[in-house]
Amino acid sequence: MRRLRIDDSRSILTRLPIAVSYKKIPVQKPGPDEVLINVKYSGVCHTDLHAMMGDWPIPTKMPLVGGHEGAGVVVAKGELVTDLELGDKAGIKWLNGSCLACSFCMQADEPLCPKALLSGYTVDGTFQQYAVAKAAHVARIPAECDLAAVAPVLCAGITVYKGLKESGARPGQHVAIVGAGGGLGSMAIQYARAMGLHAVAIDGGAEKGESCAALGAAAYVDYTTSVGDDFVRDVRKAAAPDGLGPHAVLLLAVAEKPFHQATQYVRSRGAVVCIGLPAGAHLSAPVFDTVVRMLTIKGSYVGNRQDTQEALDFFRRGLVKVPFKTAGLSELQDVYQLMREGKIVGRYVVDTSK
Amino acid sequence: MRRLRIDDSRSILTRLPIAVSYKKIPVQKPGPDEVLINVKYSGVCHTDLHAMMGDWPIPTKMPLVGGHEGAGVVVAKGELVTDLELGDKAGIKWLNGSCLACSFCMQADEPLCPKALLSGYTVDGTFQQYAVAKAAHVARIPAECDLAAVAPVLCAGITVYKGLKESGARPGQHVAIVGAGGGLGSMAIQYARAMGLHAVAIDGGAEKGESCAALGAAAYVDYTTSVGDDFVRDVRKAAAPDGLGPHAVLLLAVAEKPFHQATQYVRSRGAVVCIGLPAGAHLSAPVFDTVVRMLTIKGSYVGNRQDTQEALDFFRRGLVKVPFKTAGLSELQDVYQLMREGKIVGRYVVDTSK
Amino acid sequence: MRRLRIDDSRSILTRLPIAVSYKKIPVQKPGPDEVLINVKYSGVCHTDLHAMMGDWPIPTKMPLVGGHEGAGVVVAKGELVTDLELGDKAGIKWLNGSCLACSFCMQADEPLCPKALLSGYTVDGTFQQYAVAKAAHVARIPAECDLAAVAPVLCAGITVYKGLKESGARPGQHVAIVGAGGGLGSMAIQYARAMGLHAVAIDGGAEKGESCAALGAAAYVDYTTSVGDDFVRDVRKAAAPDGLGPHAVLLLAVAEKPFHQATQYVRSRGAVVCIGLPAGAHLSAPVFDTVVRMLTIKGSYVGNRQDTQEALDFFRRGLVKVPFKTAGLSELQDVYQLMREGKIVGRYVVDTSK
Amino acid sequence: MRRLRIDDSRSILTRLPIAVSYKKIPVQKPGPDEVLINVKYSGVCHTDLHAMMGDWPIPTKMPLVGGHEGAGVVVAKGELVTDLELGDKAGIKWLNGSCLACSFCMQADEPLCPKALLSGYTVDGTFQQYAVAKAAHVARIPAECDLAAVAPVLCAGITVYKGLKESGARPGQHVAIVGAGGGLGSMAIQYARAMGLHAVAIDGGAEKGESCAALGAAAYVDYTTSVGDDFVRDVRKAAAPDGLGPHAVLLLAVAEKPFHQATQYVRSRGAVVCIGLPAGAHLSAPVFDTVVRMLTIKGSYVGNRQDTQEALDFFRRGLVKVPFKTAGLSELQDVYQLMREGKIVGRYVVDTSK
Repeated sequence: MRRLRIDDSRSILTRLPIAVSYKKIPVQKPGPDEVLINVKYSGVCHTDLHAMMGDWPIPTKMPLVGGHEGAGVVVAKGELVTDLELGDKAGIKWLNGSCLACSFCMQADEPLCPKALLSGYTVDGTFQQYAVAKAAHVARIPAECDLAAVAPVLCAGITVYKGLKESGARPGQHVAIVGAGGGLGSMAIQYARAMGLHAVAIDGGAEKGESCAALGAAAYVDYTTSVGDDFVRDVRKAAAPDGLGPHAVLLLAVAEKPFHQATQYVRSRGAVVCIGLPAGAHLSAPVFDTVVRMLTIKGSYVGNRQDTQEALDFFRRGLVKVPFKTAGLSELQDVYQLMREGKIVGRYVVDTSK
Repeated sequence: MRRLRIDDSRSILTRLPIAVSYKKIPVQKPGPDEVLINVKYSGVCHTDLHAMMGDWPIPTKMPLVGGHEGAGVVVAKGELVTDLELGDKAGIKWLNGSCLACSFCMQADEPLCPKALLSGYTVDGTFQQYAVAKAAHVARIPAECDLAAVAPVLCAGITVYKGLKESGARPGQHVAIVGAGGGLGSMAIQYARAMGLHAVAIDGGAEKGESCAALGAAAYVDYTTSVGDDFVRDVRKAAAPDGLGPHAVLLLAVAEKPFHQATQYVRSRGAVVCIGLPAGAHLSAPVFDTVVRMLTIKGSYVGNRQDTQEALDFFRRGLVKVPFKTAGLSELQDVYQLMREGKIVGRYVVDTSK
Repeated sequence: MRRLRIDDSRSILTRLPIAVSYKKIPVQKPGPDEVLINVKYSGVCHTDLHAMMGDWPIPTKMPLVGGHEGAGVVVAKGELVTDLELGDKAGIKWLNGSCLACSFCMQADEPLCPKALLSGYTVDGTFQQYAVAKAAHVARIPAECDLAAVAPVLCAGITVYKGLKESGARPGQHVAIVGAGGGLGSMAIQYARAMGLHAVAIDGGAEKGESCAALGAAAYVDYTTSVGDDFVRDVRKAAAPDGLGPHAVLLLAVAEKPFHQATQYVRSRGAVVCIGLPAGAHLSAPVFDTVVRMLTIKGSYVGNRQDTQEALDFFRRGLVKVPFKTAGLSELQDVYQLMREGKIVGRYVVDTSK
Repeated sequence: MRRLRIDDSRSILTRLPIAVSYKKIPVQKPGPDEVLINVKYSGVCHTDLHAMMGDWPIPTKMPLVGGHEGAGVVVAKGELVTDLELGDKAGIKWLNGSCLACSFCMQADEPLCPKALLSGYTVDGTFQQYAVAKAAHVARIPAECDLAAVAPVLCAGITVYKGLKESGARPGQHVAIVGAGGGLGSMAIQYARAMGLHAVAIDGGAEKGESCAALGAAAYVDYTTSVGDDFVRDVRKAAAPDGLGPHAVLLLAVAEKPFHQATQYVRSRGAVVCIGLPAGAHLSAPVFDTVVRMLTIKGSYVGNRQDTQEALDFFRRGLVKVPFKTAGLSELQDVYQLMREGKIVGRYVVDTSK
């Protein structure tokens, strides 16, 4: 038995209605199918802010330790855990655990498990130094990966990679990425490129256009200068040379309008994949066009465990880089403030030891 | 060379804004890649009425001979036609022809061809005794099939069969069919059953419930007595024993409301397939649910040529029967009147010789 | 905590090189992720005989309790098991457990898990009254199912159902079933039919032809009277009316010859699915034909957990019936003797209480 | 009507049993669905040599003009051809035409059409200045492409691209390419890379290893120094870090042995795709391994029309470059001689004007 004796307690972060607060709570002992991770770095995601603000229809645990992009090291494990060793790098992601036995889990759709445990939402997350997760769900982080750099892959990376898989777009085809200049978008461009896809980046402003091009976007459409029917025509022109529009669209935006436009410019038989979650938004499309052009509109949530390992492998090979800044866990409130003000470019990662 | 000399003319039907009119027009000579069909029977479809009334955003040919479910016999053919012989039974369907060379045609998505010719809409259809169609698109009707009985398969049958294929539902799974008591619905129940699927029929009234059960529906939900949240719960209960809802939904209804309800009761990861075309309708769904339940909403138009042959093969084997009444072509206006009044159960087929 | 105290021991069956022997061994206590099943009935499979005879390249546990089609009732469970209750009907199948965390398990290919536990092969099986299995892998048997009748579904049923899924054949298509008159074959015909497929049964002798027809085969080809090129032509004629051959072939035979013939009669683009395991056999096909006809040859092993539940659901709905005879567990040696002599029609199920 | 009057004749090449001969034959007039191409360059493929030598089980037209990688310009077209203009760049490939109406053509599997016309085999090919082909099958070569450079894409490029698609390998996965140092292999490495796949190149000798690495192979295994069990282990080690072997194998070799080895090192659930056609070769694999590892062995022939356009698009974007040498059509016999002696690195393209 290699279970560590852990009875000390560390500074961690719990959620209060508006502002974060810090207190010491006991370190949990992992159950037979769990591991205890010493979280070194944790990415800060918009979802964390949504959770704290209660923006979504599903209630959170209270009090709650937030965070779901935690990269660290295994320091204890339950008796059933045989394929993780103490000292292995591992990641805690949004999906902290699932039953592994329901019809969704049996078909590798663990994110749809009715008993899914959500890190930093229905169970305590990674804004603390020691966190527990189901061993089967912990991301296996390759030894050569930097823990701070890899943290944002654990949610943002997996999510956009999954969306690209769900889009059904094949190598050589064109994918429009709406919100390409943001945190998710910048990773989506890189994953698309690594998957042999052509990314048509869509966002607002010349500066974002430059950053998208630098990340490998094949084209850029600026919605602040291209509007209405022009916008539809410009997206189509920017995609495949035949002018029939992109084969798929990834909606990463947090506004509702792009959800209504995408079906206008996507290619017939193409797929519009919804990923962003604007509060209270509805998607909408004319039935006639949807039918006679055989369009698909679908939602893509987070990836399953296999998607996680694949997304990490692209990172390991250096095909996806995440621009990030580091802050101390003690500065989280400031990070949230910047996020609210829309001032974050790339991703913030907090160091749990500070 | 077997081309017949055809220079006589026959009574045919042309479209006027409100009422049908009859006149003699010359019989066309088929081009090198075309056949001339002596239409014996032609099904009457809601689309024909929509075409005459100008309900849809795409303009029709004027003057127009309507009809797109024409079953008959090949009486002349062009020089390039090698796999059809004079005397063969053949059908003219909605898709009269397509370019066979664009990217959609190359991928067997002929219905999406930008140059598609639509029978009884952009080219003259089958409400006449002799009609021309592209040989590659003419349905090959097996010799043992009755021409009057098979006519409605050429549009209604293909359409629902295609929808079931597009739904992605596998044998043993559950499909909700909305509008199951109508003409399309009654065929959808039978195709679903023949494909090993369980049909959960949804429509209004006890009488329709009985006819659905007689056709092989596994369950029936009456939306006139089951409403609101009850309706969602009842559909789920009627589907798979696990209560998670049907794996797919076929929307055959010509009202907008079912388009908004379907995403509520469909199983997570399931597909809502839009087929019916209520004038001006929009589909709509909450983004949040669509994403976290990974739902798919898609349009399914008519089938391609392979779908056509497969749909006909189910009919040939007696697995799908279409309840129909026969009228003379001269009575078409009366049939339209019944259609407007919603008084048609099953399908009307007109005999072009009367 | 509901764990039962179990410290008594029951009569069980262990494996000796040639003949079976009986002795009392202690009842195991289930681990945290395991259940203890009171096995009521256990099907007898050719694999059990292969295991006892050491016919296959993978060594078995020694001493070994055989059996892997065990249907019974949950009588104890570990602390992590939340979706099975004491008293639930459950089945122990070939795949007793797997790691649920490797790349195969993550993609719902548990049968390929390198750490897979095989009932009656690498771990003790179901020829005993109390057997342990991983809870996640235990088949959930619906309450309305008869335990003796369902037992053979747990291996034979799942295996042929999986093979039909792997074949890629769609409803309306034709599947040749080689060895259709045997135990696996008789179930394959019924599953094929329930899945909307047309079964072309292939076996030897008129009697088997009659039983295949009774089970729903669309056609029968007798290889004892149809030989050589005739055989290939006859199979093609018996399949689809276009004479191009069946869309898929299921090889359930335990001889090598059919593995060489199948690629001759299967349709271009079709799939030959290997399931039967003749000792030391090799499949073989000309490269030229395989390439220019774009043929697929593939192996299908046992089903995963989802396939298991689907296969059981067809049984629950009465679409698949297994002809079986019951014997006492004490008569197992006699059953093996009949099996060696090829005298078993259908399947034997042993009652563990006798 | 733009049909040109063409009644002159040009020097062309016909096939004699052992050596090529040259004579003038009349330029054909295209039929209604055909185009006449002024062939500028034509690649020389092993298949041309096989055709001349009568190596394959299907007889050729006699006398025969060889060649099936012809890049040129449309100079005449039939009345039904609407999407090609005189002056457009176009390519004649192996598949000169097909019926476009059989069940294979209807499903976009034109290469399997029983009436397929094969350039330089069953109809005259591209070793002449003017050649006719079915318009629907002519490759649409983008205007910016160099005709000499693109010629080898028309057979070799399409074939390996199709094979990669058929392998089912997804971006991020590993594909072993057997015969990676040859003409097909060098294109396969580049297509694999452009599709986000990792190519494990397999061939003999250090020189080929260097050229494979230069083309973007992720790893190289030299079968002259790595043999027997070592070879299997080395291929697996060279593929994915988990050591489970490549997800797919492309067999481009013209020897039989690699067909027997591939199933040993391919990953469980992986696919071995046969493309090369060693005269008289058979594929072979143990049934037991094939079943319990769920392996797939399949043949991949040439691409369909859509594959053609996709393969050309990768070339257009500069992602695939073909090393080639140019010779005059009058030097074809010498090229064949070099081919027989195995002295050609890359591909020869003949200039039909010389």
